[in-house]
Amino acid sequence: MAYLVYPGACHSRFEHSIGTMHLATMLFDACKDRYGYKGSDYECRHLRAAALLHDIGHGPYSHGTESLFCSHYSHERMTIEIIYGMQDLLAELDLDAGLVSLLACGEIGGFSQSVNPALIQMISGPLGADRLDYLARDAYHVGVPYGRYALQQILDSICVVDDTLAIEPGGCPVTELVAFARYKMFQQVYLHHVNRAYAADLRVILRAILGGEGSYPTDPTSFLKLSDLLIDYHVEQDDLVDVFARDAARRIRNRGHYRNILNRDDLSSLACEQFCAQWAAVYPGQIFLDDYRKKPVSYPLVTEAGGGLREFPQQVKIPAVSCRYVFVAPELEAELGRALQEYIPLANSTTLPDEHLRTLAYE
Amino acid sequence: MAYLVYPGACHSRFEHSIGTMHLATMLFDACKDRYGYKGSDYECRHLRAAALLHDIGHGPYSHGTESLFCSHYSHERMTIEIIYGMQDLLAELDLDAGLVSLLACGEIGGFSQSVNPALIQMISGPLGADRLDYLARDAYHVGVPYGRYALQQILDSICVVDDTLAIEPGGCPVTELVAFARYKMFQQVYLHHVNRAYAADLRVILRAILGGEGSYPTDPTSFLKLSDLLIDYHVEQDDLVDVFARDAARRIRNRGHYRNILNRDDLSSLACEQFCAQWAAVYPGQIFLDDYRKKPVSYPLVTEAGGGLREFPQQVKIPAVSCRYVFVAPELEAELGRALQEYIPLANSTTLPDEHLRTLAYE
Amino acid sequence: MAYLVYPGACHSRFEHSIGTMHLATMLFDACKDRYGYKGSDYECRHLRAAALLHDIGHGPYSHGTESLFCSHYSHERMTIEIIYGMQDLLAELDLDAGLVSLLACGEIGGFSQSVNPALIQMISGPLGADRLDYLARDAYHVGVPYGRYALQQILDSICVVDDTLAIEPGGCPVTELVAFARYKMFQQVYLHHVNRAYAADLRVILRAILGGEGSYPTDPTSFLKLSDLLIDYHVEQDDLVDVFARDAARRIRNRGHYRNILNRDDLSSLACEQFCAQWAAVYPGQIFLDDYRKKPVSYPLVTEAGGGLREFPQQVKIPAVSCRYVFVAPELEAELGRALQEYIPLANSTTLPDEHLRTLAYE
Amino acid sequence: MAYLVYPGACHSRFEHSIGTMHLATMLFDACKDRYGYKGSDYECRHLRAAALLHDIGHGPYSHGTESLFCSHYSHERMTIEIIYGMQDLLAELDLDAGLVSLLACGEIGGFSQSVNPALIQMISGPLGADRLDYLARDAYHVGVPYGRYALQQILDSICVVDDTLAIEPGGCPVTELVAFARYKMFQQVYLHHVNRAYAADLRVILRAILGGEGSYPTDPTSFLKLSDLLIDYHVEQDDLVDVFARDAARRIRNRGHYRNILNRDDLSSLACEQFCAQWAAVYPGQIFLDDYRKKPVSYPLVTEAGGGLREFPQQVKIPAVSCRYVFVAPELEAELGRALQEYIPLANSTTLPDEHLRTLAYE
Repeated sequence: MAYLVYPGACHSRFEHSIGTMHLATMLFDACKDRYGYKGSDYECRHLRAAALLHDIGHGPYSHGTESLFCSHYSHERMTIEIIYGMQDLLAELDLDAGLVSLLACGEIGGFSQSVNPALIQMISGPLGADRLDYLARDAYHVGVPYGRYALQQILDSICVVDDTLAIEPGGCPVTELVAFARYKMFQQVYLHHVNRAYAADLRVILRAILGGEGSYPTDPTSFLKLSDLLIDYHVEQDDLVDVFARDAARRIRNRGHYRNILNRDDLSSLACEQFCAQWAAVYPGQIFLDDYRKKPVSYPLVTEAGGGLREFPQQVKIPAVSCRYVFVAPELEAELGRALQEYIPLANSTTLPDEHLRTLAYE
Repeated sequence: MAYLVYPGACHSRFEHSIGTMHLATMLFDACKDRYGYKGSDYECRHLRAAALLHDIGHGPYSHGTESLFCSHYSHERMTIEIIYGMQDLLAELDLDAGLVSLLACGEIGGFSQSVNPALIQMISGPLGADRLDYLARDAYHVGVPYGRYALQQILDSICVVDDTLAIEPGGCPVTELVAFARYKMFQQVYLHHVNRAYAADLRVILRAILGGEGSYPTDPTSFLKLSDLLIDYHVEQDDLVDVFARDAARRIRNRGHYRNILNRDDLSSLACEQFCAQWAAVYPGQIFLDDYRKKPVSYPLVTEAGGGLREFPQQVKIPAVSCRYVFVAPELEAELGRALQEYIPLANSTTLPDEHLRTLAYE
Repeated sequence: MAYLVYPGACHSRFEHSIGTMHLATMLFDACKDRYGYKGSDYECRHLRAAALLHDIGHGPYSHGTESLFCSHYSHERMTIEIIYGMQDLLAELDLDAGLVSLLACGEIGGFSQSVNPALIQMISGPLGADRLDYLARDAYHVGVPYGRYALQQILDSICVVDDTLAIEPGGCPVTELVAFARYKMFQQVYLHHVNRAYAADLRVILRAILGGEGSYPTDPTSFLKLSDLLIDYHVEQDDLVDVFARDAARRIRNRGHYRNILNRDDLSSLACEQFCAQWAAVYPGQIFLDDYRKKPVSYPLVTEAGGGLREFPQQVKIPAVSCRYVFVAPELEAELGRALQEYIPLANSTTLPDEHLRTLAYE
Repeated sequence: MAYLVYPGACHSRFEHSIGTMHLATMLFDACKDRYGYKGSDYECRHLRAAALLHDIGHGPYSHGTESLFCSHYSHERMTIEIIYGMQDLLAELDLDAGLVSLLACGEIGGFSQSVNPALIQMISGPLGADRLDYLARDAYHVGVPYGRYALQQILDSICVVDDTLAIEPGGCPVTELVAFARYKMFQQVYLHHVNRAYAADLRVILRAILGGEGSYPTDPTSFLKLSDLLIDYHVEQDDLVDVFARDAARRIRNRGHYRNILNRDDLSSLACEQFCAQWAAVYPGQIFLDDYRKKPVSYPLVTEAGGGLREFPQQVKIPAVSCRYVFVAPELEAELGRALQEYIPLANSTTLPDEHLRTLAYE
């Protein structure tokens, strides 16, 4: 929903998939014949197919609706199922569906086939094509000066050592640049409060469309019929029956998103949860907590001697990607904002602040 | 449909409208107090509203579907009607709907109100905000190195002389740049054969959706319900009844667009028409001529003495914007391509080539 | 002297030489294995050396001082002599000085060695690395939006056909872009009147430094001692004895350049010459004609069939690169400006206007 | 000397001075009428003059030769003296030399005149025009993707509160961007080991040219005769008598710079000093320590309430700008590198590591 915050951000997963395939090929070519790494043409062709298909199991509006998969499901598992569904088409292109899905999704499928893990990392690793593409592409379309890095410097120092996609010491400055670009893009774009607020509306709408338990179908054919367009259409037509979904659609149409009333330094996750639970009883569906934290990333670095790996000695300390918002319906902003201000001293005196409260974790 | 040729070209009229408003304001401010031009705040506020709304009467996918307006209708007339429909809202903002629609659409409405024509040109003139915005914005999202010009140099030399938006002699080089940018964008993007082929499919689909005579409703409320999304939805859902429309939707979904079989230097407009008519009888809906030419543009220039206007002395001769394609269904490409090759010498010996055949008209 | 007009234009031939080597290699790699062209490693290594050294025979401030070579000399001949002087060094690198100088300077040296002319064109042809580098580099440092083109599109369509560096039909749009970029850079930067005025001052200063007949030494060792820095130093120190040279240095220091009093549409070359001769008798060294025209460029194009070459069908007509200025000392601007205005009708009634007067030649 | 590392970095203080004047004016205009700040035209004109002249007291190659000022002298004091020397010229432009020098150099001159300190910060503060210009300009000419920030976002949130140039909370993300840009530019460009090595050579050469004690003259007229060009000329001509200076010039001509043999994590400042002193006795002028650390920067932030200031809550921890190199003559690299390796365990066991050794200080 970033286009509701940054109008230029209207690009789609289609371009991103092509871009990821292109960058994965560049990474593969750069690594080849360095430190004794011999990538084969067979691997390269499967890498390209996997890069092209790596996001195919995403639901409408991707990341915002990940939680609608049934338990034991995820976009990766759906990706694997869809790729297996294309088995015959892939075979015609002399491609093995098992290997493609392994490269696209990593070990998730639990397939027995073995492959150099560096190939998986060329798509989804910390310096993989997926990230390199979305950072640059999103920054370009959103129109921000961060999100950029020096691709050529990455290609000059990327390599496969100990079956791991790693960088030579000379690549530390550009790796720092990628890490900072990622931090800024999450801070300013992906986790922007308005973006997160609309993502919540989106989930409500999508659950209503899905009906029943509000989960994605596990059958790939039904799943693939769901698209961004389907949601957009119902939002525009205003034909949803579910009352919460209609409200959510109206918020999107009128750009009247939920308001965040929390300054995240003020309250721990736990206290936020209690506050929201308490008020959700009074105003159902009008207040909720959005507390999100990504796993820290680390970048493998080749030792000076070239023989092994060590961790990236980050000199600039970059916070782990996270956000914490208490969203409330626009018309409750004043009332619940006041209630939160009164709750803060109370909560902070009675509960111990959790580790997220005033200290930032660093990657 | 440019996004089917250039995937990044996914931006919308929404951003363009905001950009046009912004650039119109910059042009107004630049002209103010030059050559005795005194623009008032009242004019500036109406200029901004008109710039924001100047494209509001466009149908889905804008220019490609202009021909679906009833006779005596056009997107400009629709724009005027929509603006009048917002009369009360505009009045609340202390804006006069008549003046806004006059500035947005020029003399088309035939309104008696008088206004400095330079203000209209600040939106839709040869150096107006509309063009300056779409050239730069489209070039950026499409990702091409043309379409760019030096905005600051335009602002440094733009002025109002004899009630006309004109440039001082020092602005000639940058005007040449705008003219070349416009030429390249039309040549490479807007009139790209694939883009034009899909625009034809679009019209077929839209006519089927509209039903009846396949014209746009003249009632603004019904008109505004039509959107890009509506077309996209039917294309995706494959639920069109009309057989030609279903074929068109299938071509868009499968990226199997009509093929151009004409090298435009080979045949005159007239001969093309005859060729197409002849084969359309055999293959109805499978062959058609797309012959398009825009009116030449001229750029008013202030005389050295500063007292009057003369025409822009273009040193680089830029062809008038035009295209000529004979589109055929993909499966007929070979057969009709051969037929055309056989037809060319015949046509060129019996009909006199029209002026468009081998000579280019220059702006 | 472009940095006196555009302060950012301070880059040197050093970067340009490295850039030319880099681009020549890219062109070579792009052509390889297309249309049966087999470039050898031996050729590629010599191409790179020649590209690096192609400008080494230029005097200080390059093009502005070309006229100071003795008759029968030129920067190309000097380049050849310098390259032969490096024979031993080149031999160590397994490079043949004869072949390097042939590639760097073309047929000028009249050497018997034969080579595919396409290799020479990869450096100095109409789409050669020299031009591609200086257009992009100068535009970047000067900070103008022209001078740019899409390198990847050139690489996608460049090829060697009939021993000529040519483009495939698909490369026409980007070739048009290069032609326009070149035109704008000459019009706005290289032939800018202030730039040309200072270049004249430079020649006066350099002649004074050289002494005697004011020609460059023909001996490479003495020639190579001359540098931009030598001129800059004398301009700064104000230690020149020759009175004209001291005036010229003062003009550069104080940014008080010669003024152009001619609107080139007003008077033919011949009439200008007469006017200048007449007034140069009154004010020696204070008035002179700068009338310059480059040879037109044509771009070889591969025929559709791929078998041969034809000329580039330029749709945008771009004027041949040229300028015509009548420069006078700043303090004579008013007086000689008036004299020229009085002379124009007189000259135009008595002499036949030459072809350059009101008509532009197109490339 | 950055151009010896990054060839494009050839721009001069001339452009930087104009750019600083331009940006200072933009900052002034942005602050005006925010939070009750009323800047006068009188102040603005003096601010512009001061921004233009703020670097005029720098010696050749600026920062690299700062240490050649006599004690009690600095480039700021020289700037003040030069501005006072222009007193009459400034008076003609209705400018007060005292106020100009106060704005250009801050409190250093100890002048009694009082001024709003925010005006001084608009030139030399942490978000002042000097820094904003050099970061963007250097990054552009060097050609690196860092060094960029979003100027418009700074202008949107900059303000004068409590007589201090500060940012509103909404400007925190862009301030973080400036801080990171500054860090990367120092890490990768200004403190690049090759750049620092040549700066040392430069000082040796300049001391030899200055003669006597090797200090800058305190008399502005003599001082202003020194220029980058003077050094370049002697380097090119190879006419220096002093043997150390001749060696330094040779190193610059032949690009044979001093080599750094230290990994700064290995040894404290103190231990480095001892190591260098010990070997400098053996190889005089062939080994020296370059240990440099800038004062940390802090960015004043307006409180939410808008009434006062607090410190910028930096979430990304950026190391203080610093470097530590042990430079040795190229021919001693192997021998002294080995000696250093042997010295490290010894030093680390006997001396306590200083705070700089393994821990980084953060700004």
